[in-house]
Amino acid sequence: MQLGMMGLGRMGANMVRRLMKDGHECVVYDINAAAVADLAKEGGIGASSLEDFIAKLAKPRAVWLMLPAAITGNVVHQVAALLEPGDTIIDGGNSNYRAAVDLGAELGARGLNFIDVGTSGGVWGLDRGYCLMIGGPDEAVKRLDPIFATLAPGAEKGADNVATPAKADTAAHGYLHCGPSGAGHFVKMVHNGIEYGLMAAYAEGFNILKAADAGKERRAADAETTPLDQPQYYQFDIDLPAVAEVWRHGSVIGSWLLDLTAGALAQDPELANFGGRVSDSGEGRWTLKAAIDTGVPAPVLSTALFDRFSSRGESEFADKMLSAMRYAFGGHLEKKG
Amino acid sequence: MQLGMMGLGRMGANMVRRLMKDGHECVVYDINAAAVADLAKEGGIGASSLEDFIAKLAKPRAVWLMLPAAITGNVVHQVAALLEPGDTIIDGGNSNYRAAVDLGAELGARGLNFIDVGTSGGVWGLDRGYCLMIGGPDEAVKRLDPIFATLAPGAEKGADNVATPAKADTAAHGYLHCGPSGAGHFVKMVHNGIEYGLMAAYAEGFNILKAADAGKERRAADAETTPLDQPQYYQFDIDLPAVAEVWRHGSVIGSWLLDLTAGALAQDPELANFGGRVSDSGEGRWTLKAAIDTGVPAPVLSTALFDRFSSRGESEFADKMLSAMRYAFGGHLEKKG
Amino acid sequence: MQLGMMGLGRMGANMVRRLMKDGHECVVYDINAAAVADLAKEGGIGASSLEDFIAKLAKPRAVWLMLPAAITGNVVHQVAALLEPGDTIIDGGNSNYRAAVDLGAELGARGLNFIDVGTSGGVWGLDRGYCLMIGGPDEAVKRLDPIFATLAPGAEKGADNVATPAKADTAAHGYLHCGPSGAGHFVKMVHNGIEYGLMAAYAEGFNILKAADAGKERRAADAETTPLDQPQYYQFDIDLPAVAEVWRHGSVIGSWLLDLTAGALAQDPELANFGGRVSDSGEGRWTLKAAIDTGVPAPVLSTALFDRFSSRGESEFADKMLSAMRYAFGGHLEKKG
Amino acid sequence: MQLGMMGLGRMGANMVRRLMKDGHECVVYDINAAAVADLAKEGGIGASSLEDFIAKLAKPRAVWLMLPAAITGNVVHQVAALLEPGDTIIDGGNSNYRAAVDLGAELGARGLNFIDVGTSGGVWGLDRGYCLMIGGPDEAVKRLDPIFATLAPGAEKGADNVATPAKADTAAHGYLHCGPSGAGHFVKMVHNGIEYGLMAAYAEGFNILKAADAGKERRAADAETTPLDQPQYYQFDIDLPAVAEVWRHGSVIGSWLLDLTAGALAQDPELANFGGRVSDSGEGRWTLKAAIDTGVPAPVLSTALFDRFSSRGESEFADKMLSAMRYAFGGHLEKKG
Repeated sequence: MQLGMMGLGRMGANMVRRLMKDGHECVVYDINAAAVADLAKEGGIGASSLEDFIAKLAKPRAVWLMLPAAITGNVVHQVAALLEPGDTIIDGGNSNYRAAVDLGAELGARGLNFIDVGTSGGVWGLDRGYCLMIGGPDEAVKRLDPIFATLAPGAEKGADNVATPAKADTAAHGYLHCGPSGAGHFVKMVHNGIEYGLMAAYAEGFNILKAADAGKERRAADAETTPLDQPQYYQFDIDLPAVAEVWRHGSVIGSWLLDLTAGALAQDPELANFGGRVSDSGEGRWTLKAAIDTGVPAPVLSTALFDRFSSRGESEFADKMLSAMRYAFGGHLEKKG
Repeated sequence: MQLGMMGLGRMGANMVRRLMKDGHECVVYDINAAAVADLAKEGGIGASSLEDFIAKLAKPRAVWLMLPAAITGNVVHQVAALLEPGDTIIDGGNSNYRAAVDLGAELGARGLNFIDVGTSGGVWGLDRGYCLMIGGPDEAVKRLDPIFATLAPGAEKGADNVATPAKADTAAHGYLHCGPSGAGHFVKMVHNGIEYGLMAAYAEGFNILKAADAGKERRAADAETTPLDQPQYYQFDIDLPAVAEVWRHGSVIGSWLLDLTAGALAQDPELANFGGRVSDSGEGRWTLKAAIDTGVPAPVLSTALFDRFSSRGESEFADKMLSAMRYAFGGHLEKKG
Repeated sequence: MQLGMMGLGRMGANMVRRLMKDGHECVVYDINAAAVADLAKEGGIGASSLEDFIAKLAKPRAVWLMLPAAITGNVVHQVAALLEPGDTIIDGGNSNYRAAVDLGAELGARGLNFIDVGTSGGVWGLDRGYCLMIGGPDEAVKRLDPIFATLAPGAEKGADNVATPAKADTAAHGYLHCGPSGAGHFVKMVHNGIEYGLMAAYAEGFNILKAADAGKERRAADAETTPLDQPQYYQFDIDLPAVAEVWRHGSVIGSWLLDLTAGALAQDPELANFGGRVSDSGEGRWTLKAAIDTGVPAPVLSTALFDRFSSRGESEFADKMLSAMRYAFGGHLEKKG
Repeated sequence: MQLGMMGLGRMGANMVRRLMKDGHECVVYDINAAAVADLAKEGGIGASSLEDFIAKLAKPRAVWLMLPAAITGNVVHQVAALLEPGDTIIDGGNSNYRAAVDLGAELGARGLNFIDVGTSGGVWGLDRGYCLMIGGPDEAVKRLDPIFATLAPGAEKGADNVATPAKADTAAHGYLHCGPSGAGHFVKMVHNGIEYGLMAAYAEGFNILKAADAGKERRAADAETTPLDQPQYYQFDIDLPAVAEVWRHGSVIGSWLLDLTAGALAQDPELANFGGRVSDSGEGRWTLKAAIDTGVPAPVLSTALFDRFSSRGESEFADKMLSAMRYAFGGHLEKKG
């Protein structure tokens, strides 16, 4: 079927490619004309302006936005102004689900459909397919089913060693209608919150493995350094890439994130290309706000998020205060790094 | 090749079956004679006593112990007393790696080999293979390679969508010689520490999803209950089994633990068969002690462990103290559950 | 000077008493006429309706609201409708600072002053004085200085063993103009966030002391219970009330919360009157949202908050999921409590 | 009464001074002869060697060691070799309580008394008195009561606004016999664990206050930086020294640590003399090991400890791994600091 895609960055362009490969017709638009031209060469129908883009779409129109969260809200309103009742806007970006709840109500009142699609899969989605978490009105979501089915991985990619759901449904193909507008981004938000926790668990574990040789080091022997207790038990040189690899095969902690970690460690066991300033996108923050609002404990997810803040130096003043207190009550002088 | 297996519980018996299926000869022993008899029917060579067990093994002997951690130490010494230089004892249980370090030195001094094998895979290992993390002397580990290769999953079970290590090695087949005695259990210990963190991340996330309908509830409106902020954003009924299923397909957080979680939720979305008192075996505790000793931050892994303690009611007195303080400074009366 | 107080619950009534004792004139109002009558007997000027209340105030009027956060917003608007330019509304309750920011702008545009006062001191404030954190327009805050000075503890109550600020100011008397509207409640919000962290630190510590006799217990010896390592080191019967008392005298962790804790433990070392369901008011939640918004790590404060959620049973589903996973991969059966 | 003090560093020397001021006779020894000479000038009885030190003590001898934890064990054995049944060794340093348990048994078998005294009060103890947590045999502890009473602050320094324990006891004077050998250091250990949690709570809170102006900053607007939500609510310039000061007067979070923090901020609101590398002595680590062993949740205390590790750069590899994962699944490039 036909889909209009606006926003032809890495994610949007690859989704168009995956759709066209499966026979869908894609009308494509971006403020970057070169991005439009590239996809036009690959079979897309290029548009030269927003108006041209809308004009090239058959009714009921389906406009998928794949844009930075910061501008999505404005663009939705620009697009909506050009649409007619029965048309549909899909936001596949990393927007706050609350915006989707609000837009669903606002556009719904004008006869337009608003669908929010949380999209996971990253740069691998073109080949692997995208996991889609969808929120919006039933009829519009149903009408776009062929699009979702193509973008999703399909059933064959799942693990086969556990009980599958009693009723075969789209979830087993990698896409799910989660509820009304906002539900898709809500589920994606929690997905990312979990992602932070999983990543932190692996990272902490490998950091402990890396320290398994601590007993071999000569440590400072001053009052401000705690001596290593029983150094005879910390004499191991663990091969981190090999451990990551072995855990991929038959262990309880096998995962796609571990697969990727093994790949990164295989390239460079020291990960020297990375400085360790870890960004966070909004979803982890929103997940915690949802936990806080609803009174659900999320200590692991919050700790994982706060560690990212700390990795960017944001605990500096707090740390200085700890040193200031230690100096004030005990005369402890800070050690230099 | 030949292996002696002592301890024919769920894990030990299944390992024997997997070995015999691949053509190895297994001499089997357990204080439970029925367990011995069962495996003898399946092709194992049953032993009627520890002495008989040792006598039936060809030299250099290889004795694999698959026993509860609490008794492993004693049994190692009983077995060792019957062995000769060049023989090998393998501990495949959940022992503290420190015991393996000590036993490696002690038995090594007598010409015996001590190998510690961290074994992951649980009840699925018979079919899926076991992920093996091995510590011990090079020669003995090398001699037992056929045994490890059979127990491990083999290369075909790994994911194929990431860069594989430059040099093909046993890790890609699911087993790894991690270092001298203790290194295997050390790596397995950290594996389990990570496992706790991963599990907690999923559990917290699904708990937040479950609360996505909080805005529909009528909440108490008293001074001791924080009102829900903006209930219009918590109106979703999320289908947890379906979400678990969809995340298995193409998402960043796909994993074997998620596969199992999806299976459990498919059977019962409320998980009503479980009470929520979560046990911990020793590995998570030992992982944190290692982190503490070596000065490595592990806030996510520790939080995950402490949540298990709390699930068993161990924070009760601390919680009472919080209520007592609140009453003391503010006259706050506790709400009843 | 004159002050109108609306809301004569425990906090409001005591503040009136403290003000009258120091010679201020208080006009008092509450929807509960009995509360008004009680304070009228003690010297307050009772009002029979909101209109009567406003009419009895001299211009420029000063109306202090001491109401539940849930209704404060509405009442502010009702009161504001009856006021004239130059009048002032003070919110001394536990409102979200964001409401104060908004109200400051809204009322300011009409020539009214909005002052938010975070008030700490609880039931002890009548005698001890209240610590006041104040936000609002300079002139109005300055005009009410005599009121704040009376409510605050005054300089004599502070500790004398540290360097005092170079310039003597109101902070040393227990009240502080923190900035424009919202700043008072913002500082009070963070105050409460810290309070949660302090309380949790004490509670966890005492819980560990209570477990110092763990080596004396007979523990279950099954596969689901981790054995206690080296029980000879856990043979102490610590007298918790005595420890709380001794720490009050000269230790680094002396504090008013510890004073109160010592008092509670002296009455009942088991704190048997408390069930351990710990409420949280909004401030801890808002503190974390501020930390999340601004990218400031707050892992201790968040953990303290989430532990309160858990104390109310909110981690139950997450815990069930952990048990379900353990059963799925390892066949582990839950222990009953 | 007479006391022998060995180890005349800041703590030991000041304790001698406090004892002599109250009329006790102190025999003093240190390997640093200058330290001995200094105290001899102030009235102490100087010793020139360990043998001389012991010879100058009246029987039953009482030898107080105030030494770095790393050497205390050896010195105890050297001293013990020179003592006779009925004599007493007191360890007032920051030793692991487990050493005290062991030494109590070992020395007790030889008729010697071993007393462990956890000592809190830091550099302020000379004037303020030391909070003493004491473990050891009843009779020996009782005999030394005059020493403990002098070192402790005495009753007048405690807060008077809470119920005091029913029976007047030494705790109200700042010293407590907590139990047999090891109990003193155990209680002191938990004291320090709590201390870490309290310090972290304040530090996180002030860090949030410091960020209250985040809405005024121009923030990077790229895909790797989460935009600040609703910057209008983060427009405050909070005067941190003034807030610390005001909280000291009448608030719920008043404490001695806050007093010291206020002092430090009054000197320099930016705490620019500190770099933020926060040391930890062993007690926080041992506290967590005790919590782990006994199955007591201590998420706040552990988070506080791990933040100190992170302040020293120990999360660097973990952070690099997070960035490596983000790059692997999403092509995210790290932002530079």
